[in-house]
Amino acid sequence: MLNCPIPLEQYPQVLLAHGGGGRLMHQLVETMFLAAFQPEPAWRHDAASLELSGDRLAFTTDSYVVTPLFFPGGDIGSLAVYGTVNDLAMAGARPRYLSLSFILEEGLPMATLWQVVQSIQAAAEQSQVRIVTGDTKVVDRGKGDGLFINTAGIGTREQESAIGPTAIQPGDVVLLSGDVGRHGIAILSARAGFAFETTIESDSAPVAIAALDLCRQVPVHCLRDLTRGGLASALNELALATHLAIQLESAAIAVQPEVQAACELLGLDPLYVANEGRFVAFVPPAAAAAAIACLRQYDPAAQIIGTVTADRPSQVLLQNPLGTQRLLNFLSGEQLPRIC
Amino acid sequence: MLNCPIPLEQYPQVLLAHGGGGRLMHQLVETMFLAAFQPEPAWRHDAASLELSGDRLAFTTDSYVVTPLFFPGGDIGSLAVYGTVNDLAMAGARPRYLSLSFILEEGLPMATLWQVVQSIQAAAEQSQVRIVTGDTKVVDRGKGDGLFINTAGIGTREQESAIGPTAIQPGDVVLLSGDVGRHGIAILSARAGFAFETTIESDSAPVAIAALDLCRQVPVHCLRDLTRGGLASALNELALATHLAIQLESAAIAVQPEVQAACELLGLDPLYVANEGRFVAFVPPAAAAAAIACLRQYDPAAQIIGTVTADRPSQVLLQNPLGTQRLLNFLSGEQLPRIC
Repeated sequence: MLNCPIPLEQYPQVLLAHGGGGRLMHQLVETMFLAAFQPEPAWRHDAASLELSGDRLAFTTDSYVVTPLFFPGGDIGSLAVYGTVNDLAMAGARPRYLSLSFILEEGLPMATLWQVVQSIQAAAEQSQVRIVTGDTKVVDRGKGDGLFINTAGIGTREQESAIGPTAIQPGDVVLLSGDVGRHGIAILSARAGFAFETTIESDSAPVAIAALDLCRQVPVHCLRDLTRGGLASALNELALATHLAIQLESAAIAVQPEVQAACELLGLDPLYVANEGRFVAFVPPAAAAAAIACLRQYDPAAQIIGTVTADRPSQVLLQNPLGTQRLLNFLSGEQLPRIC
Repeated sequence: MLNCPIPLEQYPQVLLAHGGGGRLMHQLVETMFLAAFQPEPAWRHDAASLELSGDRLAFTTDSYVVTPLFFPGGDIGSLAVYGTVNDLAMAGARPRYLSLSFILEEGLPMATLWQVVQSIQAAAEQSQVRIVTGDTKVVDRGKGDGLFINTAGIGTREQESAIGPTAIQPGDVVLLSGDVGRHGIAILSARAGFAFETTIESDSAPVAIAALDLCRQVPVHCLRDLTRGGLASALNELALATHLAIQLESAAIAVQPEVQAACELLGLDPLYVANEGRFVAFVPPAAAAAAIACLRQYDPAAQIIGTVTADRPSQVLLQNPLGTQRLLNFLSGEQLPRIC
């Protein structure tokens, strides 16, 4: 047996942060899982890119453990469809087929399961994907948490060129498809019973139609959806993968006032708060105007938020309106556990 | 909101038996999941059969919640690879790519995770599949049970004709690939700490090479691997799907003496006990001799165990050596929970 690549003296047990989208999760995935399974570079993205007798396919999976099961703007069922559909779209692929697997806890109200199933059905219809295979497991009371869902998805890639981190170039313009931070705050307020003045709804939604439209209109280099760890974590992963710097303008990043206020109250940075219906796109500068025009058809809050440079390898830098710059690091721990 | 298709007065909550492979699980899958998602008949098998621009693909998923994580003859990691690989093979497909998703419980020893990852890696190599995409979630202490795994798989179908329940004909011969009952008894003895005279090892193993070899040599009508609910449940599902009867010879069904003794001690029927490396094949009578010769290259315990007839629709009948016959019904409840 080989030595464990995670230092056991330091991390003898799995921590919540190992699933939180920050530095510890990155370390676990890179040093244990990717080292063991050695996927090709084109697979180390939101979805794996496969060739099967000439077909260009994308393949992805996610398990969903969000708590509570129902929250303002969504539920675990629609989230499990949108999340996987969005990952396929991030590889420039049209989502086609989903698998669906339930891990149910003994004692789950049957009516709850039925409500989730109906939500999945509606979300699949809206996302134009078909659920073609599935599985059901039941674990004893106290060994689960109501229900967990896994979906895996197959999509067909429509683009000739690969869309992914390896295609990012210095000079690329970074676009953001809408405002950030709503999903995490919606979950947190539902969980803790916070009553903000207005209900903050999750941004949970399918983004495939917008993302694929963008791919047809401009030569997109990379797409990445923003989930655990928010905008800052997604960009840190890309900066690390490309050895390039990403320079952001803080004023260009849309945050709803209610979300900003809630974050201030809770001591959170909205750039690290989870989203479930937002993505970033990297395009060459000549395509930036056409790209932002395209994205604004789907969400008027879409913005150009920054550029890629070669001068500060693997760093994400945020410039505020006064001209000062700060480093946006990986979170080392867990900001909000179980948001998806 | 539509009415819940499961009668809520009778089943207000999910029971362990809803995941046990018997009548309640069949009802949940048929009346709730399949009614909601309406997959095509060719998809209602171990794996969905898809066409993507001319490619014939198979797609399947399973979540694994076996307890304990390690048992004689296997562990949750190898099981999660073999189980999904085997489902693809049951559609006559060569397993190609797997996704891998972990739901970890906070506090899981990191060394345990590493041991499981190494087992997955070895099982994937042995099964000639590549793990190309994955996901990691962590749930809080007490909300999971160490670790759960989901794998989904893509395979390429090599046969022109569809292999599945719809191809079963009256007169077909039923073959069984080896002895039955070992996996369930191995799990049960590991769980309860029973000390039988000899250690009963799980039959957990990949069957794709044997199954695909069989498909190349004879015109196979249907394949089905035997997991939850054992041989009897798998055959009941097929009898129900085809509206045909399956007549079995009890003397032809191999059960190891140690497994038989353990079953008698525990009050279990080995025909309902889970397997993880066994399958049945339905072939036309003219192909039976070639088929059994093929299967015995992989396991000398392979046997012809029965035939398909049209006279007792949807029933599975077992003839004992004295010539008397009994009906093998669906189990209504849960025999051994969480065996996979």
